Amino acid sequence: MHLFRVWAPLPSKVELQLGSQRLPMSAAEGGWWEIEARLRDGNADYGFVLDDEGPFPDPRSPWQPNGVHKLSHVVDHSAFPWSDAGWQAAPLSSAIFYELHIGTFTPEGNFDAAIGKLDHLVMLGVTHVEIMPVNEFPGDRGWGYDGVDLFAPHQAYGGPAGLKRFVQACHARKLAVVLDVVYNHLGPVGNYLGRFGPYFTTRYCTPWGPALNFDDRGSDEVRRFFCDNALMWLRDYHFDGLRLDAVHAILDTSAEPFLEQLKVEVAALEAQLGRRLVLIAESDLNDPRLLWPRECGGFNLDAQWSDDFHHALHSVLTGETTGYYSDFGSLAQLSKAIQQAFVYDGQFSRFRGRRHGRSPAGLGGDRFVVCLQNHDQIGNRARGERIQQVIGGSRHEEALQLGLLKIGTAILLTAPFPPLLFQGQEWAASTPFLYFTDHDQELGKAIREGRRREFAAFGWKPEEVPDPQAPGTFQASKLDWSEMSRAPHAELLEWHRQLIHLRRTEPSLTDGRLDAIGVQWNEKERWLVMKRGPFTVACNFSSQMRAVGLRAGAHKVLLGSASGVEVTSTTAKLAPASATVLKCGG
Amino acid sequence: MHLFRVWAPLPSKVELQLGSQRLPMSAAEGGWWEIEARLRDGNADYGFVLDDEGPFPDPRSPWQPNGVHKLSHVVDHSAFPWSDAGWQAAPLSSAIFYELHIGTFTPEGNFDAAIGKLDHLVMLGVTHVEIMPVNEFPGDRGWGYDGVDLFAPHQAYGGPAGLKRFVQACHARKLAVVLDVVYNHLGPVGNYLGRFGPYFTTRYCTPWGPALNFDDRGSDEVRRFFCDNALMWLRDYHFDGLRLDAVHAILDTSAEPFLEQLKVEVAALEAQLGRRLVLIAESDLNDPRLLWPRECGGFNLDAQWSDDFHHALHSVLTGETTGYYSDFGSLAQLSKAIQQAFVYDGQFSRFRGRRHGRSPAGLGGDRFVVCLQNHDQIGNRARGERIQQVIGGSRHEEALQLGLLKIGTAILLTAPFPPLLFQGQEWAASTPFLYFTDHDQELGKAIREGRRREFAAFGWKPEEVPDPQAPGTFQASKLDWSEMSRAPHAELLEWHRQLIHLRRTEPSLTDGRLDAIGVQWNEKERWLVMKRGPFTVACNFSSQMRAVGLRAGAHKVLLGSASGVEVTSTTAKLAPASATVLKCGG
Repeated sequence: MHLFRVWAPLPSKVELQLGSQRLPMSAAEGGWWEIEARLRDGNADYGFVLDDEGPFPDPRSPWQPNGVHKLSHVVDHSAFPWSDAGWQAAPLSSAIFYELHIGTFTPEGNFDAAIGKLDHLVMLGVTHVEIMPVNEFPGDRGWGYDGVDLFAPHQAYGGPAGLKRFVQACHARKLAVVLDVVYNHLGPVGNYLGRFGPYFTTRYCTPWGPALNFDDRGSDEVRRFFCDNALMWLRDYHFDGLRLDAVHAILDTSAEPFLEQLKVEVAALEAQLGRRLVLIAESDLNDPRLLWPRECGGFNLDAQWSDDFHHALHSVLTGETTGYYSDFGSLAQLSKAIQQAFVYDGQFSRFRGRRHGRSPAGLGGDRFVVCLQNHDQIGNRARGERIQQVIGGSRHEEALQLGLLKIGTAILLTAPFPPLLFQGQEWAASTPFLYFTDHDQELGKAIREGRRREFAAFGWKPEEVPDPQAPGTFQASKLDWSEMSRAPHAELLEWHRQLIHLRRTEPSLTDGRLDAIGVQWNEKERWLVMKRGPFTVACNFSSQMRAVGLRAGAHKVLLGSASGVEVTSTTAKLAPASATVLKCGG
Repeated sequence: MHLFRVWAPLPSKVELQLGSQRLPMSAAEGGWWEIEARLRDGNADYGFVLDDEGPFPDPRSPWQPNGVHKLSHVVDHSAFPWSDAGWQAAPLSSAIFYELHIGTFTPEGNFDAAIGKLDHLVMLGVTHVEIMPVNEFPGDRGWGYDGVDLFAPHQAYGGPAGLKRFVQACHARKLAVVLDVVYNHLGPVGNYLGRFGPYFTTRYCTPWGPALNFDDRGSDEVRRFFCDNALMWLRDYHFDGLRLDAVHAILDTSAEPFLEQLKVEVAALEAQLGRRLVLIAESDLNDPRLLWPRECGGFNLDAQWSDDFHHALHSVLTGETTGYYSDFGSLAQLSKAIQQAFVYDGQFSRFRGRRHGRSPAGLGGDRFVVCLQNHDQIGNRARGERIQQVIGGSRHEEALQLGLLKIGTAILLTAPFPPLLFQGQEWAASTPFLYFTDHDQELGKAIREGRRREFAAFGWKPEEVPDPQAPGTFQASKLDWSEMSRAPHAELLEWHRQLIHLRRTEPSLTDGRLDAIGVQWNEKERWLVMKRGPFTVACNFSSQMRAVGLRAGAHKVLLGSASGVEVTSTTAKLAPASATVLKCGG
C-alpha cells in the first residue's frame, strides 16, 4: 500500500487518479487530503482531481516522466543503492566550484553522460560541482529557472535515478555536489500549484510573475513545501548544498523570515546526517544580514555570491561600461572587491539610481563565492559570449587578450574567496552559452520578441540575437570537448590547473581573513599587486612593461603567465598583460 | 530673497508660480530645481508648474492655507517665539501617553482650543500627549491618515503657528508631545507627488494604494523627504517624538532599511539638540527587530505599540471572539501579554492563518506602549463604541461592567509598559469615536459603501453604520466635557487619577524588567494576580467572591475598585468584578 497525501486547502473535493482508477481522498487536518492505495502491476502514474477538474500533477511530484502537464510517477527513494557512506564535502574555505548545465555540458545532455566527464574535473582540481536547476521545467531544453515541479528531476536529463547516479559518481571521485534551486518564483507553464493552495500572494510582484507566499495566510505550509524540497535534495539525493537563486525576490516581512527557517532546518539535518551541508545565496542586495549569525539578526546562510567582485574584475579586463558595468571600471574598485567582496557597501550606484549595500565587515572570505564568468554573466549577453571574446574589444592583439584572461583567472583563483568556474571556462571554450527555451509556440514567440527588444536597446539588430526557441541555439551552447587539447585552449587549461593546484596546496591562499590582505594598485599605469601571507600576485593590465614594488625579501616566481619578469628583492618588472605569482622566503 | 527648491526629476521643465508671477527655475544636481525670488507685498503663495501643467502645491509645502489642491504658502520657522529652552521630555520608562485627535478633542476642534484642555491632562497626571496626524489632508474633517502634504499642519486645525502654540503650551505644563506620522502611504486625494518624482513603486502593494519607494531607483531622495519630514517636526515644531503609523506597510528590502536610517538621523538630531527624542512604531509584525540594537541587526527604534496586549485584555473583559479577537480570550494569554507584550511570538494564529511573531526576550518593558483603547480599537468598530459599551455584552449588570472597566484600567496602569489612554477614556466618555471623512462626493460614496460592506460581514445593516461623510458623524465624535463631573464618569476619572498618581510615585511600577514580574491566574475562577516588587494587583473578573493566595507578609490595600476586600498575611478575598492594589511591607 502507498500513502498518497496532498495539501489542497482550496478545492472542496480531491480525488486520486491512479492509472485508470479514480479514488476519493479523505480530508485530513490543515487542508491535507490522503488515501492509501495499492500500486497495481507497477502502474505508479498518478495525479489529483480537484473539484472534478484534472487530473493535475502532484505539487510534490517526485518524477514527471512525460513532462509538466502529465501524470506524476511514484518514486521509492529508499531503493537506490548508495555507496557513499562516510562522505564529507570540503568546507567552503577550501572549495573550488565548477558550475555546469546538464543539458549542454555533454553532447548527450544528461546525467549519465555528465558522469563521463567528471574525471576531467578531478584532473582540473575542483572540489564542488554546482549544477544549474534540474527540477522539471517545460519542454526538453532550458536553463531550468522556469521549473514548476520542484521535487522532480528533469525527465530529459534522466529523472531521479539518473540524478542519484550522478551524485554518487561525484562523491566516488571526492567531488561535492551543490544544486541550484529556485525559491523565488515558479515558471509560467505547467504551474498548477495555485489550484491546490495559496502558494502565491498578490502583496508583492517579482520580475518573473506572481510572488510566492512566504508571509501571508497559509504561508506555513508554503514554507514547508520549500523547506521539504531543500531537505529532500540533501537527504534523498545526497547533495552537499544548495545554491538559492535570487533570494532578493523572496519577499517576506515576517518576524522569522523563510530563509532563516530554511537554514535552521538544514542545520538540523546536517547534525542528524553528520555530513556538511551548505546554503549559498544568490543575492542582489549586498546585504550581510544573509550571512550574519542569528544572534546578530542574520539568517546565518553559509555564503552568498558576490556580483560586485565579478563586475569589478570584468569591467577592468574588458573596459565595458554599459548596463551594470557603468558602476565599475576602476582598479580601486577591484581592490575593494578583493578586500571585502562588496564594492557597494552604502554608496550611490548610478546604475541603480540609489545607495546600495552595506558593509560586510567581520565576515570571512569563505562567505562569498566569486567568479570571472557564470551562466548569467555569459548567457545574459545578446550572443552568449564568453569573456575572451569581449576582452579588450578590438584594440588589443590576441596575445594581449590571452594575457588579460590569464590575469583575471589568476586573481579569481588566488583571491580570498571560494572561486567558481563556469563549464568550459578552464579552456576558454569557444562555444557560447546562449539563452534557450522549449516553450509552446505562443510563449516562445513572446520570449523571442522580448529578448530581441531587450537587446535592441544595446544596439543589436533582431536577426543578430539568437532565437531562444531554435533547437540550434541549444545545440550551439554545448561544449566542444575536442578543442581542449588545441591551442590556445590547452595553454589556458594548464594555467587553470596550475593555479588550482597552488590554491589547494598552499593554505595561505585559502586564509579567509579579509583584513590580512594587502592590495596596491596604480590606476594610470594599470597594475595591481595583491599580497597574501608570503604570496604576491602581481598583475600588469597594460600593454607596457611595468615595475612594481615588493616587500623586501627573497621572492621566487611560482607561476607566470608570461616570461620576461625580472624580480629583485624589492621590485618586479612585469611583462605586458601578465600575471605573476611570487612567493617570499621558504 | 527666498530660495525656492524642489526635487522634480520627472518633468523636463519646472517653473515657480509666485502669486501671479511665473518664473523659470534652474535645474540643479540630482533632479533638483531652484530659484531665488523676492516675496512681494507679503504674497508668499506659491506652487510649481511642471512641463506647463499646474501649478501644483510644493511636495514639502509648509502650509496649505486653502487645502490640498491650492497653492502652498511660505513659512519662516525662525520667527516663532519659543520659550521652552531647557525642556526635556520624561523617558519612556515613566511615560503615560494620552492620545488625542485635534478635531474632536474640543468643540472648536483646533490647536488653540486644545490648549484650553491641557490643564485637565496635567491634573490627570499624564506625561506625553500624542496627537493623531495633523499634516494636511483633504477636506476639513478626518482622522488624518490620508494626509498628502506631509510638511504642512492642517489648515482647519490652525496651521503652523497654531501647532507651535500647542506644543509650546504643552511644554509649559511639562507635557511632552508626540506626533503620529504616516510614512507608509499617501492619501488618494491631492496627492501630486508622483508628478514630481519616483515617490512610489510598483514593486509592492499596500492596503491603501501605491507603495512608497524606499528601495528602488530614486529612493535616496524619497527617504530624504521622509527623514527631513521627521527632523522638521522634531526641530522646527519642538516635538518630543514621533509615532510611526503601520510600519509593516513600509516595504523595503534594502541592506540599510529606511527605518534604521530614520532612527540614526533622529539620534543625531537628539545629540545636537540635547533633548530626548523618541521613535515609536505601530507594527503588525510582532518583530523585535524593530527594537533590537543595530549591532544585533535591529533598527533601534525606542518602542512599538503592542496590539497583543490590547487584544488579550479586551477579549478577557468583553468576551468578544470575532475578527482578530478570535486569537485571544484566555487569562493565560493576558498573563503572557503582561510578562512580554507579545502573545504571539511564533505560534500559529488562526486569524492570520500562519505562524506569527518572534520572541521579544531581552527587551525591557519601556519598549512597548500598551493600551486598553485607542483610536483604531474604538474607531474601527462599526459604531465607534468605547469599551464600556462592549464589556460583558448583555449578560452583566451595570455595576459589573463598571467593575470590569476598572480592572482593565488597573492592569493597564500597573503593567510594566508605558500605558496609553485615548481621549475621554479617563472618564469613560459616552461619545463614540467614529470613522469620519470629508472627501468629494464620488470618493465619499465609495468610502461609505465600502464601510457598510465591511461591517455587513459582522451582521450590521447598512443604516446602522454611520456615514463617514456626514458632518454629524464627526460632530458626534467630539468629547462632551460636561459629563466628566457626573456619575459614573467622575468615579472613573478618580480611579484613573489615583492609579496614575500611584504609577508616577512608585518606582517599582515603572521597573521595566519583564523577568521580574510574577503573574498567577485561574482560568475557571476567572481571577489574575500580578506581582511587581512589593505590589500585588489582584483582579477578580468573575461575578463571585474569590480568594487568592498572596506572598506571606503584611499587605496593605492601597487602592480598591470595590469595598469588601479581606486581606490576611497570605490571602485576599476579592469582591466580584474588582481590582485591588496591595503593597507588602514598608
